[in-house]
Formats: sequence, structure tokens, C-alpha cells
Amino acid sequence: MTAASNTYDVVVVGGGISGLSAAKLLKANGLTPVVLEARDRVGGRTFTVRNKETKWVDLGGAYIGPTQNRILRLAKEYGIQTYKVNEQESLVHYVNGKSHPFKGSFPPMWNPFVLLDFNNLWRTMDEMGKEIPREAPWRAPHAEEWDKMTMLQLFEKICWSSKVLHFAKLFVDVTVTSEPHEVSALWFLWYERKFVGRSSQISEFMADELGDLVKLESPVYRIDQSGDMVEAKYLILATPPGLNMKMHFSPELPPLRNQLISRVPMGSVIKCMVYYRENFWRKKGYCGSMVIEEEGAPIGLTLDDTKPDGSVPAIMGFILARKCRKLSGLTKEERLKKICEIYSRVLGSEEALHPVHYEEKNWCEEEYSGGCYTAYFPPGILTQYGKVLREPVGRLYFAGTETATEWSGYMEGAVQAGERAAREVLCVMKKIDKSQIWQTEPQSVEVPAIPFVTTFWERNLPSVGGLLKMMGVSAFLSVATVSGLVIYKKGLIPRS
Amino acid sequence: MTAASNTYDVVVVGGGISGLSAAKLLKANGLTPVVLEARDRVGGRTFTVRNKETKWVDLGGAYIGPTQNRILRLAKEYGIQTYKVNEQESLVHYVNGKSHPFKGSFPPMWNPFVLLDFNNLWRTMDEMGKEIPREAPWRAPHAEEWDKMTMLQLFEKICWSSKVLHFAKLFVDVTVTSEPHEVSALWFLWYERKFVGRSSQISEFMADELGDLVKLESPVYRIDQSGDMVEAKYLILATPPGLNMKMHFSPELPPLRNQLISRVPMGSVIKCMVYYRENFWRKKGYCGSMVIEEEGAPIGLTLDDTKPDGSVPAIMGFILARKCRKLSGLTKEERLKKICEIYSRVLGSEEALHPVHYEEKNWCEEEYSGGCYTAYFPPGILTQYGKVLREPVGRLYFAGTETATEWSGYMEGAVQAGERAAREVLCVMKKIDKSQIWQTEPQSVEVPAIPFVTTFWERNLPSVGGLLKMMGVSAFLSVATVSGLVIYKKGLIPRS
Repeated sequence: MTAASNTYDVVVVGGGISGLSAAKLLKANGLTPVVLEARDRVGGRTFTVRNKETKWVDLGGAYIGPTQNRILRLAKEYGIQTYKVNEQESLVHYVNGKSHPFKGSFPPMWNPFVLLDFNNLWRTMDEMGKEIPREAPWRAPHAEEWDKMTMLQLFEKICWSSKVLHFAKLFVDVTVTSEPHEVSALWFLWYERKFVGRSSQISEFMADELGDLVKLESPVYRIDQSGDMVEAKYLILATPPGLNMKMHFSPELPPLRNQLISRVPMGSVIKCMVYYRENFWRKKGYCGSMVIEEEGAPIGLTLDDTKPDGSVPAIMGFILARKCRKLSGLTKEERLKKICEIYSRVLGSEEALHPVHYEEKNWCEEEYSGGCYTAYFPPGILTQYGKVLREPVGRLYFAGTETATEWSGYMEGAVQAGERAAREVLCVMKKIDKSQIWQTEPQSVEVPAIPFVTTFWERNLPSVGGLLKMMGVSAFLSVATVSGLVIYKKGLIPRS
Repeated sequence: MTAASNTYDVVVVGGGISGLSAAKLLKANGLTPVVLEARDRVGGRTFTVRNKETKWVDLGGAYIGPTQNRILRLAKEYGIQTYKVNEQESLVHYVNGKSHPFKGSFPPMWNPFVLLDFNNLWRTMDEMGKEIPREAPWRAPHAEEWDKMTMLQLFEKICWSSKVLHFAKLFVDVTVTSEPHEVSALWFLWYERKFVGRSSQISEFMADELGDLVKLESPVYRIDQSGDMVEAKYLILATPPGLNMKMHFSPELPPLRNQLISRVPMGSVIKCMVYYRENFWRKKGYCGSMVIEEEGAPIGLTLDDTKPDGSVPAIMGFILARKCRKLSGLTKEERLKKICEIYSRVLGSEEALHPVHYEEKNWCEEEYSGGCYTAYFPPGILTQYGKVLREPVGRLYFAGTETATEWSGYMEGAVQAGERAAREVLCVMKKIDKSQIWQTEPQSVEVPAIPFVTTFWERNLPSVGGLLKMMGVSAFLSVATVSGLVIYKKGLIPRS
């Protein structure tokens, strides 16, 4: 490593939320950590830009919500205000070239078969998810089976209608910035999936508190744990697992860790903020949230990004996964033009074509993030390599949101992982007991968890297949018909 | 970079066959290259150990064969002899706890349905493979469709009998040291699949020829292409694509390349050489080649490794993919014991339990290979990122067997890629014309290509599904039955 001396107890690699949380906790326990950050800023995958056009804008992670009690605790400690994204007016679901305004969590489905199918999809995924232990998804009863499948395969098994299948695909794009055929079903079902600024403030306050203990522009090239070269007693690697690859290790990492870190790519996303003179969408009864299903549209999901006081009207949109890779080749201006065009079509408004300012961040080009929001696990990796994800190697400990057991991939997971890694070091230094490493977090008073209520019908409505059976069609016939359709759809019969 | 000066025209990162081939060609064209190799040896994924017990043994890449004309050319230039692996006596196929001796390329199948199914599998894969352009597999007519599928999915569509399915899975393990559910069908079908020492000699001779221009123990931490920091006119990265991650780039790599290099993991294999006092298997009529289908067996494939003069009797075996990850945790002695046990069962011989020496190499723990034999592409990556695999970035050019268009993953591909990258540099330096970058290689006189002959029956026998149709069963009934079976087998009906 480049900038460490014997005066530090712990070297933390990475000045994102996870690394800073670790260092903060170590310092609070009387140790002297140092944080080495490759970039010229702290915050990692959170990144706030300030300028006169936007006042401030989060070009990285920004949304926090109920049950994310650790990040809410830090926000409260530093006096950072949170606010609710505007969803007072209608959301819009744009599909097959038409806009459908709606309220609530999911777009309405008018066709009863589609509704059954949609309901069955969420229920099935929920039920499967419940089988997966948070702290060790590779130990789920069906871990091997589900890890061999991509999410696309699972959707093709569960979904009856192409409408629901398409929506499900977009759901994966939005949730993990990767395509359903790229990710393991086991991993996706494990990955938590719920949602709700100036997010890099949290990192900045932590860095302020740490002062000189944070070294910017200090990329780490080598980790030498052998003999006299050791310059710190312990090391916490607080980067995405794949970025461990940026370091050369002596001695070499054990075989499974050495291979794990080249098997967990980061998702692909460009975060795009379009600024307008006026908040014209609210006047039309739209809150600014759009769910856009159209292959030619650059954006899959939008949210209102107007400041809470109503100033600086803006729409945040994500260019996700395959679209991100495709549109990375365009210029910033070309992307903005395409974005405004689809906003204009979805919102039915000419005004969308006349932005006053544009900010964007393509996370795929950030060497020291590798992508955003988080790492994904391709099929087969979680069951084979998952167990070494946070297993210490000599005096190396592992943080980073990917190693969290709750809200992995989110800011909340980064805090959990950083604090847990810090406590692992405190434990090995005999400053705390082993039983204290994993700690639960009291619920935030300001943002309490709202129980997610499912209705009787949502829990008990049959799937489309089940309905056909209930309708009294003879078992043989229904199977023959259904299977004929399924086989046709899935191309299971080789065209010999 | 660490060890370069203005006196070099081209810095080549990586002293494997690809990097050395590039440097050799550049030097032959009057330039002064320098090869920076992180390890204390050349050869990369080829690695020859010399000691009194083995005389010499290849613990890495070792087999070359017909149509691999570039590596054969180098072997001839340096006077390196090749020899045929012993396959005079019978091979053995071990399945369901029983050994079946056989001759020829594939184990015999007695059940006519299984034979049809087996034949149909190879024919279908062959036909699909023919559609895929070698130089741009992402442009195949069905590229997107096949890239969304894992090989397991494809096998489940093609294979009728579980016997053939199991054999097909082992075939993937052996060919690419990864599991069928981990790899993209498009990539696997593109990857060439045909097979026949002292392989690191080739690298050693090239390194001797280059003399001082090869710098060992010179890991490259940084690549700075900006302004005055440049210490060489051009750079060739001759590492597996994933090992580009070991370098920090300034300026950052373009978004697609930055993400590609964290999306192409290396396979998992331990190469195991067991030495015996006597070549007992030949006396029993076995040549030493075993194809072992048993979940509890560590080894999937073996070949005789006795020296061509009959001395140092030995069996080479691969611990592949999932088994490699599982058995990485054992000690060397424990692995040897398990290996001898299965050899004893398959060969029906007590002598197999008494080895006189053992050598092994777990490639998963090599930081500067990342695994062996080659990189694989998980689903979705080849179509999205393939086109930047060998696309130059500023003054950076890309070699390494993974960038080859023929025999990618093999030593032959390493030579093709290294020489092509060298010619790209020669072209940009105006020393050769653009049309000269890609060159075909004349056929080796010593090892000519033998046309692969398929019989009339192999080409024209129906698949099992086709046979059922031909047998005059009514179309409806056959579909109903077949689909019922398929659905049952694949669990397509949700257990609601």
C-alpha cells in the first residue's frame, strides 16, 4: 500500500459509506484507522454535484427508506434531512405506445388473467424468497437448483402472459441494473427489493469527523501480509468484491477468494437528470414517476427530482442494463435528446422537449466503482463462492455493501457491512466479544417501518394454471393444451 | 508501469505464449519491445516442472493437435518434439459404478434411443456452431437468443435421455473447466472443441531469444497514457481479459471495456499427475484414458502421461469446475488418496492405490492466471461486450488467447492473438499494411489436419422426437405424451 505507516492500527481501503463507517466505529473505540481512497473524493457510489443550475444533485445512490435504520441513524446524527419523493399525483405506466396513469405500487392490470398471473408472480417470488436465509443464501433448501437458473428461466416458468413477463424483466433491470438472463435466480430472490437527499453528505460528514485519517487519491496497488512489510495490524477492504482485483496480494489469496473476485460484475446504469423551467408534469396530474416499457426508449424508470421546496424542477431517469451498454456510445447531447423525446411521448407534453439543463453520470466508466448500483451474481456463483464473501483472509477483513446480510447493494448495507467488519477487527484485538460482532439496529423513530400488507385475494388467488384446473377442465385435456402452448412458446421441441 | 524506459518501442504486459509471440514478432521486425511479467517465470498458463521423480511434467497447458499450425510452427522452429498421447489400448467410460472399455472418440451407446439422442446432440451443436462467425460470434443470426441461454438450458432442450444429458454436462466440465449452467450457450458453441510435451519450452525458447527484453517479477500496477507520463509508444496487454483489472488506468478505460474485464472469469481446474512404479493399466488392456461420471469422484477425465520412451509411468487427471472448488479445501494428500481410490475402482486394480509420487497444480490460486484453462463468458456478456474484446484503446492493444478467432483458449490461440496484436502495432507505425494484420497459417507438414468424417447415419439419423413422429404415432398424441413427459421432467408446471 502507498500511504500507511506504523502509527495506524487499521488500514481501510475505500472511502465509500462502508469504509468510512468502519473507520468511524474504529475511531470511536479508541483505535487509529486510516482510510485510503483512490479517487479525489469520498462517497464511492454516492456522488453529489453542486452547481448553480441544480443547487445540488445526487448522481449516485440517493434513495433511502423505512427499515434502513443504520443509514437513518447516521443521517440523524449529522442532521441531514430526508424527504419523500413526490408521488402525490399519478404515476404513469407506458406500454405498447400508450400511457396509463395509476396510483399505488403497481400498475393496474385490467385483464383478469393478466392480473392473476401478475399476482401469482409476486407471490411465488415472495414465497421462494422466504426460504432463503439472509446471512447464507447458499444454504437455502433449493439453493443449488435456483442458482443454476437465471431469473429469465424462472420468469419463463412462472409467467403465463407476455405482458407480465415483460414487466418482470423491467423489474430486474430497475432493481439490479442487469438483465434477467444475466443473473442467478437464487441471488436475485435473495437480494432485497423494496424502495424511497444529498446522499454523499453522509460520507462527507464522516470524512470530516475522521479528518487527516482519510487520504484521497491514494489508490492501493499492493497488499503485502508477509513478514516485515506489514505496515498496519489489520486491513479492511471496503470496495465492491470485484475491485479487490485492483490489488496485487502477497501472499496470493486463497483459491476460492481469488476466483470469487473475478465472478461478481457490477451492474450497468447511467443516471440522468433533466431540468426544466417549470414542473409541467404536476400540472398535468403526473407526479413524475414513469415506468416505461419500450425497447427503443432509453429510460426504464423515472422519479421526480424537484427540490422539496418546489425549486429546480427535474426528472431523474435511469438508463439500465442492455440500454446502458448500447447508449454508452452516444454523446451526452444525443442521450438527452432521446430522453426528452420519450418523456414528451409518455407525458403527452411538448414542454418535455425543452430542458434547461442536463446532468448525467455513466457509472460503467468509473474505474473505482466498476458500475452501479451493485455487484450481481451470475448463475452458479453464489452457491460455489458465496461462503467466502466475508471470510477473513489472514489479517484482511471484508466490508462493502455486497457483504451485507440486509439491504445488500444499498447504502444501508454499506453501513451494516462496514460496522460489522470494524467489529470483527475489534473482536480479534480482544476489545469486544465475538457475540457483539453482529448487532441489530433499533428502528428509526422518524421513519418507522410500515408493514407491507397483502390482501386476502393477493395471497389466495390462483395462478392462471391453477384457475384452469379449478374451472373443471379435465386434467388430461388441460395439461395437453397448456403444455402444447408452453412448448410452443418456449421452443422446447427441437426444430429437427 | 514499473520497469520501462524511453528506449522501448512497445511494452508487452504478460510473458505467456501470447505476449512472447508478440514481442518475438516485433523484434523480428526491427523494433525493441520489452516484456513485463509479474511472476518469476515465463509461460503463463503453461508451466513445466523438472525434478528427479518426474524428469519433467507439464502442470499447465500441454496438449496440441492438428490444425494448430502456429504453435506447431514455433515448436518446429525451436526443435521441440511432439508425441501422441498413448491411446493404443482401450479407453474406459465409468458410469453408474461400472467400467465400460471402448475404442474411438466416444463411448459406445447400446440403447438405440440413447444412441439417437447422443448423435442428435452432437449434430445439433455442430449445426448451431456453423452459424456462428469465428471472428464475431455476436453477429450470429441467433446470437441474442443463444447468449441468453446457459449451456444447461440448451442441453435440456436438446437431450432426451438423462444418460446423454449427464455426458453432455461432463463434456462442458472437461472442455472449459466450468459448469454448463455457468456459461453462455452462444459462447460455448463458438468456443472450438477438438484435442493432443514440455509445453513451457516454447515460452522459454522465445524468452531466451528475447534475452534482456524480458523482465521477470515485474508486475504492472499502472498504465498511464496521459501526457508526459508515457514511457513507451505502444502497449500490448497479453493477459487474460480479466487480469486487465490488476492495472489502474489513466485515463480510465471506456465504459464497455471497463465492465467487460470484470465479466469474464477464468475456469476452475486442478491438474493432477499420479506416478506409479509400473504402467499397470496397459497390461490390463487400458490406455490410461478414463471418462469418469460419478459425482463423488474427484476426477472427470484422465490421459496417460507416461514418457514417450515408456519411462516414468503416470496418469494425468483433471479435477474440474464444481469439484475443483469443493476439493480446493482438502490437503494435497487427501486429494491424492481420493484420486487413487477412483483410479483403483475404474481400472479394477489394487496397484492404483500405491502411487510413488504426486504432482498437482491448482490454477485457481494463481493470482496472475486467475484460473485455467481459459476465460468463460456467462450468459449475456458475449453479445453485449464481445465487440470490444480486441478493440484498441488509445495506444493499448489486446492479445491473449481469449482474443483469438481460432483455437481461443488454447496455446494456438495465444500465438494467433499475440502475432495479430504485434501486427496491429506494426500497422499503426506504418511498417505494414492494414491488410497484413490478419494472416492465415500454412498447414503443418508434420501434423496435417485429418478431416473429421461423419457417417451417413450420423448425419441423417433422426432425433428421438423425430423418430417418434416417423413411427406414425398421431401428431396430437405424440405431442401430448412427449410434452407431458417434458413438462414433468423440467418442472414447468408451478407446484401451486
